[in-house]
Amino acid sequence: MNNLREIMALATRPGVLSFAIGLPAAELFPREELAGVAARVLRTEPSALQYGLPLQPLKAQIVEMMAWRGVRCTEEQIFLTSGSQQGMDLLSRLLLPQGGQVLFDEAVYDGIRLATRLQQPEILTVASDPATGMDVDAVEALLAGGARPAFLYAIPDGHNPLGVSLSREKRHRLAALARRYRMPILEDDAYGFLYYGEEPAPPLRALEEEWVYYLGSFSKILAPGLRVGWVVVPPPVAARLSPLKHGADIDTPSLSHWVVSAYLESGSLPAHLTTLREEYRRRRDTMLAALREHFPSGVRWSHPGSGMFVWAELPPGLDAVDLLRAAVETERVAFSPGAIFYGGAPQGARYMRLNFTSLPPERIEEGLRRLGRAIRALQEKPGAELASPPRLS
Amino acid sequence: MNNLREIMALATRPGVLSFAIGLPAAELFPREELAGVAARVLRTEPSALQYGLPLQPLKAQIVEMMAWRGVRCTEEQIFLTSGSQQGMDLLSRLLLPQGGQVLFDEAVYDGIRLATRLQQPEILTVASDPATGMDVDAVEALLAGGARPAFLYAIPDGHNPLGVSLSREKRHRLAALARRYRMPILEDDAYGFLYYGEEPAPPLRALEEEWVYYLGSFSKILAPGLRVGWVVVPPPVAARLSPLKHGADIDTPSLSHWVVSAYLESGSLPAHLTTLREEYRRRRDTMLAALREHFPSGVRWSHPGSGMFVWAELPPGLDAVDLLRAAVETERVAFSPGAIFYGGAPQGARYMRLNFTSLPPERIEEGLRRLGRAIRALQEKPGAELASPPRLS
Repeated sequence: MNNLREIMALATRPGVLSFAIGLPAAELFPREELAGVAARVLRTEPSALQYGLPLQPLKAQIVEMMAWRGVRCTEEQIFLTSGSQQGMDLLSRLLLPQGGQVLFDEAVYDGIRLATRLQQPEILTVASDPATGMDVDAVEALLAGGARPAFLYAIPDGHNPLGVSLSREKRHRLAALARRYRMPILEDDAYGFLYYGEEPAPPLRALEEEWVYYLGSFSKILAPGLRVGWVVVPPPVAARLSPLKHGADIDTPSLSHWVVSAYLESGSLPAHLTTLREEYRRRRDTMLAALREHFPSGVRWSHPGSGMFVWAELPPGLDAVDLLRAAVETERVAFSPGAIFYGGAPQGARYMRLNFTSLPPERIEEGLRRLGRAIRALQEKPGAELASPPRLS
Repeated sequence: MNNLREIMALATRPGVLSFAIGLPAAELFPREELAGVAARVLRTEPSALQYGLPLQPLKAQIVEMMAWRGVRCTEEQIFLTSGSQQGMDLLSRLLLPQGGQVLFDEAVYDGIRLATRLQQPEILTVASDPATGMDVDAVEALLAGGARPAFLYAIPDGHNPLGVSLSREKRHRLAALARRYRMPILEDDAYGFLYYGEEPAPPLRALEEEWVYYLGSFSKILAPGLRVGWVVVPPPVAARLSPLKHGADIDTPSLSHWVVSAYLESGSLPAHLTTLREEYRRRRDTMLAALREHFPSGVRWSHPGSGMFVWAELPPGLDAVDLLRAAVETERVAFSPGAIFYGGAPQGARYMRLNFTSLPPERIEEGLRRLGRAIRALQEKPGAELASPPRLS
């Protein structure tokens, strides 16, 4: 079950309503506009299909986007990648020696574990509070106690899987710790452009330029199939990433890099972001209302201000993987069980991650009605679940 | 100089005629057709921009292409990558432990060194004969002597940088050695579809299914900017590559995977391959004729039947890196010095790799006229070059 493919197989079974995968809403992709720019790029840019140096105009456009997030940077600090997952992979190769330490939230995007697996790191974790996020006191205590992680990985906005965003104070403290201990922070900002209330506090990179390595992505704000991301790092780090990317998949612009650049050139992204924020806010609100209506008492959940996920906690005695199996079989509805984000540790057993962006509101309502029924059925079922020992969370 | 970026910078200086990079001919990219299919895919395939499972129709199409090369395989044996460089990277992660052994030609595509660098391997090498390629006797002697490389990397057709293709007999011997010693061979077939005479001998994968892992690419036969490649491996190996690709850049189809699949569906690839073979043969013949006409006696070169490169050897006392600097400054012409492919070892000092696919015939003729002048000028120059100690080749 701790295998993404298995979950994806369960979650994509025909007829299953799925909250499992962090999918953006496919019906909101600007397909017509991308079709136009892709055809134009291919017809008018002889270099768009050839090997070449990384795409300078796209770097300049990303510098401008970073300013929307309150981040000042230069083109020399931008390194273009194949999605932000590649940024994690290349930075792990650069920073993390074999068997070195890394520092994660205890509940964290599973891709960062995959990106560091080859180095067989010692993974230090700090508690993740669904309401306030990473325990910065615990980070400080680890560092003060002598821990020297190759990097700390953080998702300050719209955390995956918790949905939580860090307070301004926690951001300042993390930035100060990075400086004091000369510890790089990999700041994953995949969701930072997707906020549903006031503009969020500035990213860590706006507070600390030297020790925060920012990871950006077009996957959630434009389309994952483009596979375009970027990192913002000090120029000497960018220079060292290039041979690593060359070894990984050649440090050359992809057709998608050209397409994204042409799309940005059209000036359509700000309006598209507004559309995404409005529609995703509506879906989040629908999910929160449906949770109140359909979930039995005893289930608790987060109220995300950014991103794509609600994090819910089942009552003691219920196991999320058991629930997933039952929910798919009997109610044809799926979600991601917490174990995935805890690297299989038992503390994740009662949690579930619910994506609110991929389904339209009426399907969200219907799916949570079914999931609420599945939880009740499991609660009422005599036997294994209730007999299992109480779990710590 | 041992840095691809520096060479690319030299070789792409405005006004420099460059034989340095392994570029396919940009003017032959089927841009209009790709523009049509890209726009159609984006307009009609809602999944083309979304996360999803690897693209099954593309796997089926590649199975058919593999049959053109005499290789029988199934869709379960195809793993899709972002260019064949990613195949090298992922297979290195899978097969090569820290500090393990690998076995290369002494002159070899530099990307395989980059793909294995993180594991800090012990690199075993065997001689590369410009006329016959990899020394299979030496491979056998190493294995018989107890060497146990995690894999052998081979380019049986249109070797990069030598241009040579292996004899049928050497292929059978390599396949037999892989079987006998249970040693995976990474067969890089980037150039196998580009032959200029009779159809070449079958790839190693046609001779040995279990121990030969085939690396294919659309970069040279369609366009590098698409970043689409594949590997053909036993199904259990394919299954183990998936989480590695997930950690590297997410194992999801890219827009390019969809575009390539739609292009293949149109049935245009066979005619396009015929066009490439005819035009590249013309360019190769132009290069060989220009070498005879413009290069001083004492320079020797290979006569490739496949691929994109001629490999030339300077007379004793001349250094290819010195020549490159002088040729760019005085004649505005560039090539790749052999040192790149020898991992900096001094045996590479007198060699040069000349790409014959990227320039039209009249530019090839002009470039080699200039390069011949630069060699003569260096030969006639008193001082450093002639005073340097003789080099082994």
